Amino acid sequence: MDTRATAQIGRTLQRIGRSIRSLLFFTVFAVGLHAQTPQALMPLPAAMHLNAEHLAITPGFATKVEGYDEPRLHRATERFLRVLSRRTGITVWDAAHPNATLLLKISGPSAPAQTATEDESYRLEITGANITITAANPLGAMHGLQTLLQLVQLDAHGFYIPAGTIEDHPRFAWRGLMLDTSRHFMPIEVIERNLDGMEAVKLNVFHWHLSDDQGFRAESHVLPHLTEAASDGLFYTQQQMREVVEYARDRGIRVIPEFDMPGHTSAVLAAYPELGSSDGPYRIERKWGIFDPALDPTREETFRFIDKLVAEMAAIFPDAYFHIGGDECNGKEWNANPRIREFMREHHLTDDRALQGYFSSRVQTIVAAHGKTAVGWEEILQPQTASDVVIQSWHGAKSLATAAGSNHAAILSKGYYLDLNLSASSHHAIDPLAGEVKQLTPSEQAHIIGGEAAMWTEYISSETVDSRIWPRGAAVAERLWSPPALLDDDIDFYRRLASLSTLLELYGLHHRSSYNEMLARIANGQDVAPLRVLGDVEEPPKQHDRAHLGQYTSFTPLNRMVDAISPESDTGRQFTALCRRILEGKATADEIAQAEALLHLWQQNDSRLRPLLAASALSDDLAASSSALSDAASIGVEALHAVTRKLPTTNAWRAQSLQSLEADAKPHGAMLLSNVEAIRTLVLASSGSDKLLPTPAR
Amino acid sequence: MDTRATAQIGRTLQRIGRSIRSLLFFTVFAVGLHAQTPQALMPLPAAMHLNAEHLAITPGFATKVEGYDEPRLHRATERFLRVLSRRTGITVWDAAHPNATLLLKISGPSAPAQTATEDESYRLEITGANITITAANPLGAMHGLQTLLQLVQLDAHGFYIPAGTIEDHPRFAWRGLMLDTSRHFMPIEVIERNLDGMEAVKLNVFHWHLSDDQGFRAESHVLPHLTEAASDGLFYTQQQMREVVEYARDRGIRVIPEFDMPGHTSAVLAAYPELGSSDGPYRIERKWGIFDPALDPTREETFRFIDKLVAEMAAIFPDAYFHIGGDECNGKEWNANPRIREFMREHHLTDDRALQGYFSSRVQTIVAAHGKTAVGWEEILQPQTASDVVIQSWHGAKSLATAAGSNHAAILSKGYYLDLNLSASSHHAIDPLAGEVKQLTPSEQAHIIGGEAAMWTEYISSETVDSRIWPRGAAVAERLWSPPALLDDDIDFYRRLASLSTLLELYGLHHRSSYNEMLARIANGQDVAPLRVLGDVEEPPKQHDRAHLGQYTSFTPLNRMVDAISPESDTGRQFTALCRRILEGKATADEIAQAEALLHLWQQNDSRLRPLLAASALSDDLAASSSALSDAASIGVEALHAVTRKLPTTNAWRAQSLQSLEADAKPHGAMLLSNVEAIRTLVLASSGSDKLLPTPAR
Repeated sequence: MDTRATAQIGRTLQRIGRSIRSLLFFTVFAVGLHAQTPQALMPLPAAMHLNAEHLAITPGFATKVEGYDEPRLHRATERFLRVLSRRTGITVWDAAHPNATLLLKISGPSAPAQTATEDESYRLEITGANITITAANPLGAMHGLQTLLQLVQLDAHGFYIPAGTIEDHPRFAWRGLMLDTSRHFMPIEVIERNLDGMEAVKLNVFHWHLSDDQGFRAESHVLPHLTEAASDGLFYTQQQMREVVEYARDRGIRVIPEFDMPGHTSAVLAAYPELGSSDGPYRIERKWGIFDPALDPTREETFRFIDKLVAEMAAIFPDAYFHIGGDECNGKEWNANPRIREFMREHHLTDDRALQGYFSSRVQTIVAAHGKTAVGWEEILQPQTASDVVIQSWHGAKSLATAAGSNHAAILSKGYYLDLNLSASSHHAIDPLAGEVKQLTPSEQAHIIGGEAAMWTEYISSETVDSRIWPRGAAVAERLWSPPALLDDDIDFYRRLASLSTLLELYGLHHRSSYNEMLARIANGQDVAPLRVLGDVEEPPKQHDRAHLGQYTSFTPLNRMVDAISPESDTGRQFTALCRRILEGKATADEIAQAEALLHLWQQNDSRLRPLLAASALSDDLAASSSALSDAASIGVEALHAVTRKLPTTNAWRAQSLQSLEADAKPHGAMLLSNVEAIRTLVLASSGSDKLLPTPAR
Repeated sequence: MDTRATAQIGRTLQRIGRSIRSLLFFTVFAVGLHAQTPQALMPLPAAMHLNAEHLAITPGFATKVEGYDEPRLHRATERFLRVLSRRTGITVWDAAHPNATLLLKISGPSAPAQTATEDESYRLEITGANITITAANPLGAMHGLQTLLQLVQLDAHGFYIPAGTIEDHPRFAWRGLMLDTSRHFMPIEVIERNLDGMEAVKLNVFHWHLSDDQGFRAESHVLPHLTEAASDGLFYTQQQMREVVEYARDRGIRVIPEFDMPGHTSAVLAAYPELGSSDGPYRIERKWGIFDPALDPTREETFRFIDKLVAEMAAIFPDAYFHIGGDECNGKEWNANPRIREFMREHHLTDDRALQGYFSSRVQTIVAAHGKTAVGWEEILQPQTASDVVIQSWHGAKSLATAAGSNHAAILSKGYYLDLNLSASSHHAIDPLAGEVKQLTPSEQAHIIGGEAAMWTEYISSETVDSRIWPRGAAVAERLWSPPALLDDDIDFYRRLASLSTLLELYGLHHRSSYNEMLARIANGQDVAPLRVLGDVEEPPKQHDRAHLGQYTSFTPLNRMVDAISPESDTGRQFTALCRRILEGKATADEIAQAEALLHLWQQNDSRLRPLLAASALSDDLAASSSALSDAASIGVEALHAVTRKLPTTNAWRAQSLQSLEADAKPHGAMLLSNVEAIRTLVLASSGSDKLLPTPAR
């Protein structure tokens, strides 16, 4: 046989195949690429000194509680051992053992209901033989267990935990996640696994958005119409809510319910139309946006209703705080109602904003009467607002500064809206003590007690919510826990985030597995690979752009590619980094080959994907995005060739290419290509006029 | 720029890249390849007539129960809607609705505790507008719901269920899965998700192997030492066992506990050594095999102990049957004990087998006294065995024929041992009414009431058990449910099995996701792709071979590649099919290119994988298997080239290649290459003497 031909084919295959394949796996399994140290530490601890010693993990790994003890600690060590087993594949047998490997030394109990000022610190000491977690209370000890899980590593000798000392405590006391369960209902198991994720990254407030225009989700016995007529049958029973509170307490997490009012009350008014500010008719809202329905603040019946609701819910949620909403009331119903206008005149309320101030004060009084402190969105802040009310800033840091400057405790959500599909690094960069807040005195700044990631669910279902919260929520968690000096300019951030993301799947979150599952569904039994190539490089629309890219209601299935993909493309980010290194002249030959292979893969993907689209109703919106990817990649191939070979392109070619890329960069199938900007940079650099053109180290 | 060179590279890339990539995805996502109809029907129904109409699935899909009703049915429809939502990505809102899409018409209740003779039939009628399931009782209706889920399909217009009529009932009444939770403890959630899988394929008996040499897993209050000294702290509380019974009943599954005796009692005797047939000492066994410890059948204390145990457990498990084990008692302790030998003489028991007969009779009497019928492994069958005792055949079909021939109800497990890592098709081919059984009269054959898949767990942990049971357990389920005429020579079997396997992951089983998770763990942050290429084509050792390939105990972590991979390689099977088509001259050019690309991928994999192995203690046993794969593939490349180009190889080359392949076929890293036999066939065919050499349709 012709061995020369075989060898030649072999060599060609080896050269080209290697690049393509390595890139394929770069694409699919990008996470592992840069992981020299598989350390998933996030949030970074306040102080850490690791040494060269190791504690080996074996099936005999056992735990023991010393000093103060309670059943919650044993459930915590059982969870710890379960994740440890899942991380290592070593079944760890015994959760309580006389010769313990892991000793928990705890001084005393936590508060019966976790408070916002509780000591969360812990000290972690690891030697080659054992581990000690020392904490004032179970809360700190549980944080220490999570840090420990993030330290587990594998090398050629086996699984181990590096020895050393960690002294840790949070920077901010209030580190929350707000989850909207009204616009899309989230079954209890979704809530619970996200509480598991919160525990992993030391978030300590679950802000449960239970009511909005699209549904009232808390079962009420005293106001049964809420359950019957405002929920579509999708609600949490009181028993389930109590279980969530218990589940959260087990994980060091407070639960604060939110009942949004006076606006965002379409569902409430569908059940109790007599509380509305117009004649209605009211109905559960099926669309997204800001709607007119508002409670009538001029009638005592309204406040009796609120009193009943707060009384009932305050008994279910033991937290000292109670969220009364208050956002986006547009005042239209109020201003259109002569009776309400008359009330405003009588009470010297100059406009609807002042009327909302009056309403909020009344609600705050009710909340206080039931032993709770009110939290509200920034709109509730008025001169007359009681000083203990906590203000949640969502429109801008200015409101945070205003609140703290007027001696209100304040928390930041602006910059932490996970539904906007922004990058993890952008959330990570937002510091609560930045911007206007810097003008405040230190004692005023001390009113800023933390922040909350916010997960609104217009375009997010129980299937996709994990992938919207994780891993990006960890960026917010770290910003709120760790010393800022450790975070700024952290080149290691995305590597740690990727390791953490892997670990979070072992906690039971679906943020990665749902992508695979949804792709397989879209592929409908056909080859999923070209779908994955496309999906890996696409991102969903940013900010509120999706609203303009389709007709969406509560009934719209969220099972398209745009729903399956990650809010932030790892592939796109890594390709951009490759291009940057190429243009800076720092790229190795291997890196240039990777960029080339990725571009070739994209270029050829359309012809592979196109035949599959006809088979599935879920892929009928992908033709344009697939074509745009191949088009952009073709331009990228030529531009990269010109850049690396120093063969300048013509002005005409560049002009035409930039025009094409502009079209490719537009949304297609409600998705955005994450690689176009990098390709555009290559095109610009292909003029040859750039002094930084690379000299590949071939 | 040199567009000719670009074009040439592009063409080369396109040609070679396409083959490699399509094969890569063939390898990784092989499931989708042959799926023309994404229909996951398994077991096949007794009678089915589908027509061209479709029922579209929309968010308004609702269910209603008519006639007899009970809460269990609503939990069943809720589960149905949850899987339907997960299958379609369409959130289905309302489980009970006046204008229902799905109507359940049920005549009356099931038995309070599901019996072995209950009516399981159902009728399914689907029109373009609605669905009706008609059944005598909830059991049949629940089976109908599972069939319905398997009918859901997607085309270019959306998700739908094909219209038509299905009339279905099982061939055998007893369709079981035996799970050994002694050798490796399985947490409750593992039990529950496997019950979900059983429901999906209409298995109706969960045979819970709760005691063996390595641990006694049922909490006992009357015999507390069992829990304290025989369980290592790994046991099911009585509350948990009751919950499993309820969980199973909700899914139409009976639960039969097994307490294995008189052998397999090392753990029991560690707790109650005074019941042993020797002076001991006894301890919980840490190794695998057949051990000597046996209960002493000569002492009344032994039977008092058994009476207490059966009384306590009979109250927890409502099923009419109770499994008393009886397998593999080697009689050594009995024969070595003069007092026991004397007892045998006195009672005219000629040997240890006769003594076991005596023991079994006593136990059967105890079981009967507590209102239960005994089930036992085939060893318990003796002339004096009470006629109602059910015999479980595990050694061969002969014992099945013997039992049925002596008027004992009998079930088959021989041929259904999932721990032997045999192919799904091999299990599928085993019919309970074959072999010696054919000699029986029809009325004798009627004693054969079904069978059970058996999952022994020497080498299986809670992490890997799903991948050992599924999807292969479905092959047994189908054999026991469907008319045999539909099953024999079913060329569609593996396609249906693959679709079902995809569906089962949506029920929450981990049989596929655990592979990804374990590979990522082994890769330790590095590129998982070459590990996957290797793992996709490897199989674990067959039969009981693994015992000889390492030193295993209860403490050995099962986190190696051999544990991660599937018992049956889809890639290997598909490559073998490709080679068969090539050698039969039926292969298309594309199929030949696929085989070539797969061989090239394997050939080059060792050089890609080798550098990764050093980083992880979990991959230090992979060098030899990786090298064997590349070696075999290199031979395959040349042989395939010779075959397709009709360029015969030399005798010397073939002789040397066959020798190499023999070495490659041996276990490496306790794994077997699934492609070597096909490559060997190519080598043999490369002599050119075979008349069937292909003429590829180029």
